[in-house]
Amino acid sequence: MSKINFITAGESHGPFLTAIVSGLPAGFKIDVNKINEQLHKRQQGYGRGGRMKIEKDNVKILSGVRNSITIGSPITLQIKNRDFDNWKDTMDPILPDTRNEKVEIPRPGHADYAGVVKYGFDDIRNVLERSSARETAIRVAVGALCRQFLENIGAEFFGHVTQIGKISIDKKSIDYNLLKSADSSSVRCINKDISEKMEREIDEAKSVGDSIGGIFQIIVKNLPIGLGSYIHWDERLSSKISSHILGIQAIKGIEFGEGFDSAKITGKNYHDEFSVKEEKIFRNSNNAGGLEGGMTNGEPLIINAVMKPIPTLTNPLKSFHIQTKEEMIAHKERTDSCAVPAASIVAENVIAIPLLEVFLSRYGGDYWGTIKKRFENEIN
Amino acid sequence: MSKINFITAGESHGPFLTAIVSGLPAGFKIDVNKINEQLHKRQQGYGRGGRMKIEKDNVKILSGVRNSITIGSPITLQIKNRDFDNWKDTMDPILPDTRNEKVEIPRPGHADYAGVVKYGFDDIRNVLERSSARETAIRVAVGALCRQFLENIGAEFFGHVTQIGKISIDKKSIDYNLLKSADSSSVRCINKDISEKMEREIDEAKSVGDSIGGIFQIIVKNLPIGLGSYIHWDERLSSKISSHILGIQAIKGIEFGEGFDSAKITGKNYHDEFSVKEEKIFRNSNNAGGLEGGMTNGEPLIINAVMKPIPTLTNPLKSFHIQTKEEMIAHKERTDSCAVPAASIVAENVIAIPLLEVFLSRYGGDYWGTIKKRFENEIN
Amino acid sequence: MSKINFITAGESHGPFLTAIVSGLPAGFKIDVNKINEQLHKRQQGYGRGGRMKIEKDNVKILSGVRNSITIGSPITLQIKNRDFDNWKDTMDPILPDTRNEKVEIPRPGHADYAGVVKYGFDDIRNVLERSSARETAIRVAVGALCRQFLENIGAEFFGHVTQIGKISIDKKSIDYNLLKSADSSSVRCINKDISEKMEREIDEAKSVGDSIGGIFQIIVKNLPIGLGSYIHWDERLSSKISSHILGIQAIKGIEFGEGFDSAKITGKNYHDEFSVKEEKIFRNSNNAGGLEGGMTNGEPLIINAVMKPIPTLTNPLKSFHIQTKEEMIAHKERTDSCAVPAASIVAENVIAIPLLEVFLSRYGGDYWGTIKKRFENEIN
Amino acid sequence: MSKINFITAGESHGPFLTAIVSGLPAGFKIDVNKINEQLHKRQQGYGRGGRMKIEKDNVKILSGVRNSITIGSPITLQIKNRDFDNWKDTMDPILPDTRNEKVEIPRPGHADYAGVVKYGFDDIRNVLERSSARETAIRVAVGALCRQFLENIGAEFFGHVTQIGKISIDKKSIDYNLLKSADSSSVRCINKDISEKMEREIDEAKSVGDSIGGIFQIIVKNLPIGLGSYIHWDERLSSKISSHILGIQAIKGIEFGEGFDSAKITGKNYHDEFSVKEEKIFRNSNNAGGLEGGMTNGEPLIINAVMKPIPTLTNPLKSFHIQTKEEMIAHKERTDSCAVPAASIVAENVIAIPLLEVFLSRYGGDYWGTIKKRFENEIN
Repeated sequence: MSKINFITAGESHGPFLTAIVSGLPAGFKIDVNKINEQLHKRQQGYGRGGRMKIEKDNVKILSGVRNSITIGSPITLQIKNRDFDNWKDTMDPILPDTRNEKVEIPRPGHADYAGVVKYGFDDIRNVLERSSARETAIRVAVGALCRQFLENIGAEFFGHVTQIGKISIDKKSIDYNLLKSADSSSVRCINKDISEKMEREIDEAKSVGDSIGGIFQIIVKNLPIGLGSYIHWDERLSSKISSHILGIQAIKGIEFGEGFDSAKITGKNYHDEFSVKEEKIFRNSNNAGGLEGGMTNGEPLIINAVMKPIPTLTNPLKSFHIQTKEEMIAHKERTDSCAVPAASIVAENVIAIPLLEVFLSRYGGDYWGTIKKRFENEIN
Repeated sequence: MSKINFITAGESHGPFLTAIVSGLPAGFKIDVNKINEQLHKRQQGYGRGGRMKIEKDNVKILSGVRNSITIGSPITLQIKNRDFDNWKDTMDPILPDTRNEKVEIPRPGHADYAGVVKYGFDDIRNVLERSSARETAIRVAVGALCRQFLENIGAEFFGHVTQIGKISIDKKSIDYNLLKSADSSSVRCINKDISEKMEREIDEAKSVGDSIGGIFQIIVKNLPIGLGSYIHWDERLSSKISSHILGIQAIKGIEFGEGFDSAKITGKNYHDEFSVKEEKIFRNSNNAGGLEGGMTNGEPLIINAVMKPIPTLTNPLKSFHIQTKEEMIAHKERTDSCAVPAASIVAENVIAIPLLEVFLSRYGGDYWGTIKKRFENEIN
Repeated sequence: MSKINFITAGESHGPFLTAIVSGLPAGFKIDVNKINEQLHKRQQGYGRGGRMKIEKDNVKILSGVRNSITIGSPITLQIKNRDFDNWKDTMDPILPDTRNEKVEIPRPGHADYAGVVKYGFDDIRNVLERSSARETAIRVAVGALCRQFLENIGAEFFGHVTQIGKISIDKKSIDYNLLKSADSSSVRCINKDISEKMEREIDEAKSVGDSIGGIFQIIVKNLPIGLGSYIHWDERLSSKISSHILGIQAIKGIEFGEGFDSAKITGKNYHDEFSVKEEKIFRNSNNAGGLEGGMTNGEPLIINAVMKPIPTLTNPLKSFHIQTKEEMIAHKERTDSCAVPAASIVAENVIAIPLLEVFLSRYGGDYWGTIKKRFENEIN
Repeated sequence: MSKINFITAGESHGPFLTAIVSGLPAGFKIDVNKINEQLHKRQQGYGRGGRMKIEKDNVKILSGVRNSITIGSPITLQIKNRDFDNWKDTMDPILPDTRNEKVEIPRPGHADYAGVVKYGFDDIRNVLERSSARETAIRVAVGALCRQFLENIGAEFFGHVTQIGKISIDKKSIDYNLLKSADSSSVRCINKDISEKMEREIDEAKSVGDSIGGIFQIIVKNLPIGLGSYIHWDERLSSKISSHILGIQAIKGIEFGEGFDSAKITGKNYHDEFSVKEEKIFRNSNNAGGLEGGMTNGEPLIINAVMKPIPTLTNPLKSFHIQTKEEMIAHKERTDSCAVPAASIVAENVIAIPLLEVFLSRYGGDYWGTIKKRFENEIN
């Protein structure tokens, strides 16, 4: 199988977020503005806190691209953390910490506790700086880069929020023609009335120092048939996509197509029957969410994912001091009250990584011109 | 990170299922009977069809183990397909096909259609033989092998069925003391009344040539704190476990702890607060399902997964002929009407693979004696 | 990059050697006889000991191939160790050792000493059974399988012995038209006179219970230009090939083209200048051995590799007892006195693995028909 | 096996060289000066050209380290290319090329020709910018980082030049007590007379626009026994080290210990016999170069590697124009006449990467304090 190898690096209040991506074909024209557009979308959304006012993320490309064209070498993406200036005294990579304010009370729901046990730290800051969802900014950049290749062969990516707190859109009533309108909602919900109710749900949580999670849906249209494979468990697209989505901070579940509701439907009603019109194959439903046998089947790829409420609360939870073992309330760190709209942007871009990987595995090649020609000539 | 590398091989009606597993420590005493026990459990369950009467799976170990002790070299596991004798004339690896009965009508819900598009086959048998869930037998053997290492340091693995069709156990009323009783239910449900209703649900589907899916839960107790990591998305246990579970045939979703219901609960009520008793850290809830920041946090690891209804129906669905493009009803292949209990066994064993991987990554070492001593001496 | 994933398994006196290979395209016709032919060649050669009379290796294909055609699923290759019957009492994977003859004196030059230190064994047999070059039999099978794909697009593989002990063929006088004649020499040397001298060199070593190593050359012709890449160190073919060749037991060095002699030649005389005839590009020399920038450049790929003398001597070396730490002479195990001709066969086949890997990375595809068509249409 | 995952990025005249390294333990104190020291050494050496006067490499650490202590997260290393300012008009990642001077005549010996064939470029600059050995600067930084961990447990790394052109040090007469003196020679040769002759050899090549290669030796002392493994070909240290060393630009061969000379020595004289003194195990020779069965055996690890002459000549070779296919002399690019001393620095640092990888695989752990304690307590 083809492999897009990438590593993301960077702490929440460190100087930079950086990623290096190798395995992308040469000869493809990159649009940096489209990457920045996704970065900006990620920073928006009703319920975000103060940091988003400090940061205005823009990616710099430092290698692998010459005059906007990929040259096949590893691509370095970098985002400056503007907030680093306020944290230099404690977060400098080399110089000693002159602030000397250790974080010693783990926040329930966060990596804090398991992190200090694992790494033997006496300062939880060493954990939270990397476990923070700030890292998703650079992951969005990687995804937004990969996405451009797939968009170039006609794929379309959509994400929208279907639930925040107890407020949800009726799954059966989703108007898929409205997907593009998600961006005009502060909560990325395509139903205007529900959008407003979701805002209220967030307001309510915020007003009591609480936080709230939700569910979002990602849809990818116009993928060729036969991406991924049933040949080995780790080549199934269901496996690959899940590993990426459940690799996003705070995501606690994923489902494809009808997902958990599939349990209730019998085979007769669940499976997407074929019909033929003028020698072309159609389906009358898409309960499988576009994947059969771990491969794309020509229908839109549809996943839902759930995000837990943000674990940092301005009205903090019960915890303890890691040295004294005394019960105390948890450490406070600047926080949002809801990040589901942002998470939907993260997922909408990140999903492009395994999809491009299986696309390149099928169409191979070192040079995008050749790959695209193969795709067009050998089309199913 | 440490890496257990394994490849499974074998077709549904080929001569053997084989797996080679590398990366397991030397000096560990294997109990083959315990592997076979899991293989036998996988073959049971209300709703299985005729093949389970032909096969009685037993694993043979062909390398990597000497006198029942691992020696560090790659371990070969092999299961003979007794049914191969009935399929030799068409499935022989080398000799030509003398039966000449091509499968040419794809089954909706199966890998059939995308498979032939992908690989250019004119016989769907080349797809279905490998995409079949028969492969899970050898994957269970790999998992049951890995599981023994973790059981040796005190971990306990449980799986039970919580929903079949519309019949489900009340998630809030699960009596976790009864987990071991799942094995005495034909549907692996720990509630006797619900078990019977589930059997009826299966009977009903079967009586009309239909099939039915369901949901199961896997629980792993007594894992040390700090397995997995927040350091990179692909080292999060949530990511690793999901890739394995969604790599199982017919699984369409996974959730950790409260999972999709987390959307409805505010942070205050969702996050698992700490309390301290006699210098020991406790939690008063486990909504996170034992993972925070992608790491084990000392609470039981809990996942739910959903299996779609089996796509091969004795009353088949609408399809078409891959050569003539004429509409036809789908190909029939011997089938079960419900495989959810079996799937719970597959998942219960397969989950041990990524868990052992992160355990070895933390405790390292080439020799089990050393690893175990480290685990005991350095315990959190 | 594309990835042929394979694991070999099996002990020298265990029941079977097994390998599983994943990542090979579907739709390719395998010739098992050609694999067996390589296995038989590996077993020959002047200087082999008694075991070669017991074993007559033949591979069985247990999966991934149907009616001699690959179907894209992982391919299981298996070779029965006939000698296992004589070793059952001590080597049975499951049953206890009833022979009870521990090996406790490490052989200098072998894995014995570092192996027991590493794995904490009290019986060196646990090391030597896997470190033995017997494992190369199954690795030859993997290589001979991969080689068929490349031969199908015109590549030709050659191996011949250029030195045994102090007897060597003059590197500058190699008649490359005679490469095929290597098989008719008992030492795989293409010069008849030198062949005889090499036999005498082996006789001499054998007569005093000693052993002898040597140097061989592998040549691969007709590879397309541009396999491998300068993009990252681990994608350079020089890196990939070296990792495979230095992964063969007893190999202590590799060089490409002029190799170590390149130090002596200035750039002016070393680099292979271009010339053009009728719009076609030619070289007037091949000092680089067919690789520039880690990529194939259209010239024959040429490597030399050196094998140390076999470390098991019938007139054994000074050693010690691992328990008592007393000085003793080393353990004896049945042995050959020279295995250089066999090693040349191992290398000649094993080199096909990274070469096919980079070929598939360039031409991609799931189906051999498509891949071959791409290769033919897009040819440089 | 444990895995240090790293990707290097950057073009020769691009703005930055960047690497991200993941898999290093937390809690280790980094000395950046020691990384810079290696970078500076790489830039020296008799025979370097003009660029070395422009660049004075210094690494910046942008993530994964806080107050000089590793925190377990991926480490970003970055070196600014000062020369970029002179190349902005053609090398800008995003802005169009305003210089418009395509390189269209491939240099024999370089990646140029195969590179354009592979990637379909019309400007060889897209190849040479990445294939250039400038990339080794950042790879030295990665190696110098890994090396610090091993030095912390007592390992010592040495490199020295043994041959330039026809001038070589007598292998048998190497005084291993003088290894540290290599740094005081402009050609990194530990023999003062030979050093001067080597300088003359370089002068001579330079004076006629020619270039010259050579051979260097790397020695690593005080590694624990049992690093690497015979278990699988790709876990042998010989394989891992070779893949790293042959992954360095212009390296055409590697040998361990006696290397190619091993062919001439019989087993009796080649293999390193054991002796015992006061219960301690000794060797009387080290022909194996510190590796048996692909594992460290307690003796110094010794390799030799050969570098071909630099392919860019100020008196260029015969080539052709890639568009017109007319014969022409090759493209000129600023160049050195000998880079063997620099290559020895590259190899001396790069070798630390696979060595640390196998060390961590053996001693595991997330936290350096724990790892070191294990190493000390469990020592052989």
